[in-house]
Amino acid sequence: LPQKLPNTGTTIFTVMSALAAEHGAVNLGQGFPDFGADPGLLQAVTDAMAAGHNQYPPMTGVPALREAVAAKLNTLYGAAYDAGSDITITAGGTQGLITALHACVGAGDEVLIIEPAYDSYDPAIRLAGAVPVGVPMTADYRIDWAAVRAAVTPRTRALVINTPHNPSGRVATRADLQELERIAEAHDLFVISDEVYEHMVYDGAPHESVARHPALRERSFLVSSFGKTFHVTGWKVGFVAAPPALSAAFRRLHQYTVFTVHTPTQHALASYLADPAPWQGLSGFYQAKRDAFRAALAATPLKLLPCEGTYFQTVDYSAVSDLNELDFARWLTTEIGVAAIPLSVFYQQPQERRHVRFCFAKRDETLAEAVKRLAALA
Amino acid sequence: LPQKLPNTGTTIFTVMSALAAEHGAVNLGQGFPDFGADPGLLQAVTDAMAAGHNQYPPMTGVPALREAVAAKLNTLYGAAYDAGSDITITAGGTQGLITALHACVGAGDEVLIIEPAYDSYDPAIRLAGAVPVGVPMTADYRIDWAAVRAAVTPRTRALVINTPHNPSGRVATRADLQELERIAEAHDLFVISDEVYEHMVYDGAPHESVARHPALRERSFLVSSFGKTFHVTGWKVGFVAAPPALSAAFRRLHQYTVFTVHTPTQHALASYLADPAPWQGLSGFYQAKRDAFRAALAATPLKLLPCEGTYFQTVDYSAVSDLNELDFARWLTTEIGVAAIPLSVFYQQPQERRHVRFCFAKRDETLAEAVKRLAALA
Ligand SMILES: CSCCC(=O)C(=O)O
Ligand SMILES: CSCCC(=O)C(=O)O
Repeated sequence: LPQKLPNTGTTIFTVMSALAAEHGAVNLGQGFPDFGADPGLLQAVTDAMAAGHNQYPPMTGVPALREAVAAKLNTLYGAAYDAGSDITITAGGTQGLITALHACVGAGDEVLIIEPAYDSYDPAIRLAGAVPVGVPMTADYRIDWAAVRAAVTPRTRALVINTPHNPSGRVATRADLQELERIAEAHDLFVISDEVYEHMVYDGAPHESVARHPALRERSFLVSSFGKTFHVTGWKVGFVAAPPALSAAFRRLHQYTVFTVHTPTQHALASYLADPAPWQGLSGFYQAKRDAFRAALAATPLKLLPCEGTYFQTVDYSAVSDLNELDFARWLTTEIGVAAIPLSVFYQQPQERRHVRFCFAKRDETLAEAVKRLAALA
Repeated sequence: LPQKLPNTGTTIFTVMSALAAEHGAVNLGQGFPDFGADPGLLQAVTDAMAAGHNQYPPMTGVPALREAVAAKLNTLYGAAYDAGSDITITAGGTQGLITALHACVGAGDEVLIIEPAYDSYDPAIRLAGAVPVGVPMTADYRIDWAAVRAAVTPRTRALVINTPHNPSGRVATRADLQELERIAEAHDLFVISDEVYEHMVYDGAPHESVARHPALRERSFLVSSFGKTFHVTGWKVGFVAAPPALSAAFRRLHQYTVFTVHTPTQHALASYLADPAPWQGLSGFYQAKRDAFRAALAATPLKLLPCEGTYFQTVDYSAVSDLNELDFARWLTTEIGVAAIPLSVFYQQPQERRHVRFCFAKRDETLAEAVKRLAALA
């Protein structure tokens, strides 16, 4: 067998969820809610099935869903996406991301990723034939634009950005997007913008989508997903928004990668998106969880890092242990009974940090139980 | 943008379905039923959602579904697949196929495909970095094993087989599989076996799965799907069965391609598979449609080719028209009001045939209306 991903094992999320299950740990590792979705959304899937929406939809996605997505992006970000030519429904954010990469980079190309970087970027870039080049964030998890500029070579073809940022919880600013735009224009780069946490931004800050910035939008694949926004991470339906030429290239590959996506869920999401309340309320909902979780963790020796968006809270455990991040996450799972994700897995080069990530998309009781166990660290 | 598929446009199925809709034609082109699925299966999805099965399943698929699939394959084909290590749930057959190809071939490799070949094989092979080599079937759509043997070179790494065969409706025999096994062993080839029509084989013939042939099974990715078997082509859930080393390579790529698949549908399929009646009855159900459709077509000048499996009937229209296949299919759609698929799209090299394919997975009234319109050809 050819070794296309020689250094890649099983994704950390699978590993830590399995370890958590085995040891009865509270699973704050893999990012998913442990509470239910809106019954109205589930009913909409049932209704779509009953209405007979069970055969192939158009390859690009159910028109009503593409229209709802375009309308939302255009309203929120002042964009002008066309539902017909610019929006494609995907089998989740992961598939949107890898297919966008396949569409815009190939052998000999370099793609910049900002580290810590979500663990599918590196293999997705390699599978597209290109070389991922990691650019570390600053010590406090801001994008280091000087480092980005220094990493650009004549072979650089694209850059992957992610805001709100997993795992750090940082949110890119308007100035960040302006820097990105300048660099992308100066070096004629494609941008793949992972915005799956777009509706989890706290303290009144805006989500800085690439869609807000016309010159950037013209060279970007905006990747998002419904799973995190609607508490259904297992549904695996997302979308890619990109201008016509980029969308055409994307669709050419999409049709032979998955062809299309679960029809009744697409119809259900189309009708569900008509009401803005669920996604408009999401930041408030998670901000309350963030605040309660942070307040409770303040009593432990774990040092809280900023959390401006996403449903992840990163902590520094250096007051507690000198284990490396992977070993500490394992120890925390098996000995303390709380699973976390070590940030080291999001880097090409080993780091000298002591940071792990908790997911707070959990019922209040779950978070309380986790904090109770973490109190043992004191 | 890099041109990874320079000669690839929009898939013929999308093109012909759009043309059919535009002209009010009876759509016997793209393969999908125009009747409903079992309400019990739809209810099972509703039940799974209500039971809270809406978050990420394990990356390889819901265990109960993998177990049901392994049990079915092992019972039907005398195989010994292990649900833990050998079965992976995919986002439909298309994704299973392209990911299997990525797992076993790379740059410089050649992959044999038997033509006419389903239109995703060629681009999937190219996207995996390899070169597709078309081997035409005999004039009556049997696999030409002498031609297959002649096409093998030192670079040949894999062969894609499809039985029951889309578009011809032919079913491979035991002797075919034995030939395949000999060639695969002699040249150490991987086999990608597209068996999505496994439960549509007529006149009492068996489905010759690669899973029936132990030496073949050891080097094969068996690709199948639930969409065609359960009349839900839009659900896009399938599976790949392969021995542990092949499955491990498959999963390494799968986790970064889609990661996983619609959780509630997986649970629903797991419970639905407990009753063998639906898939056991499928061949009888479609054989009746085939027989009625063929009997009705016999009154037209279209010459019927054999249909041993699948829900496709290929016809020779040379008594009617000298147009090439694509032009004839368009003309039939716009002027006669019945959409069909031209077989020419399934070849690398132009053919001098006059064959188009009809899908008979339609209500009796739909088929009757199509035949009524086709009577105008006389
Ligand atoms: C694909 S499983 C991982 C879920 C996730 O996005 C995360 O935990 O970071
Ligand atoms: C992926 S749409 C095509 C459906 C099909 O398999 C066919 O019509 O051959």
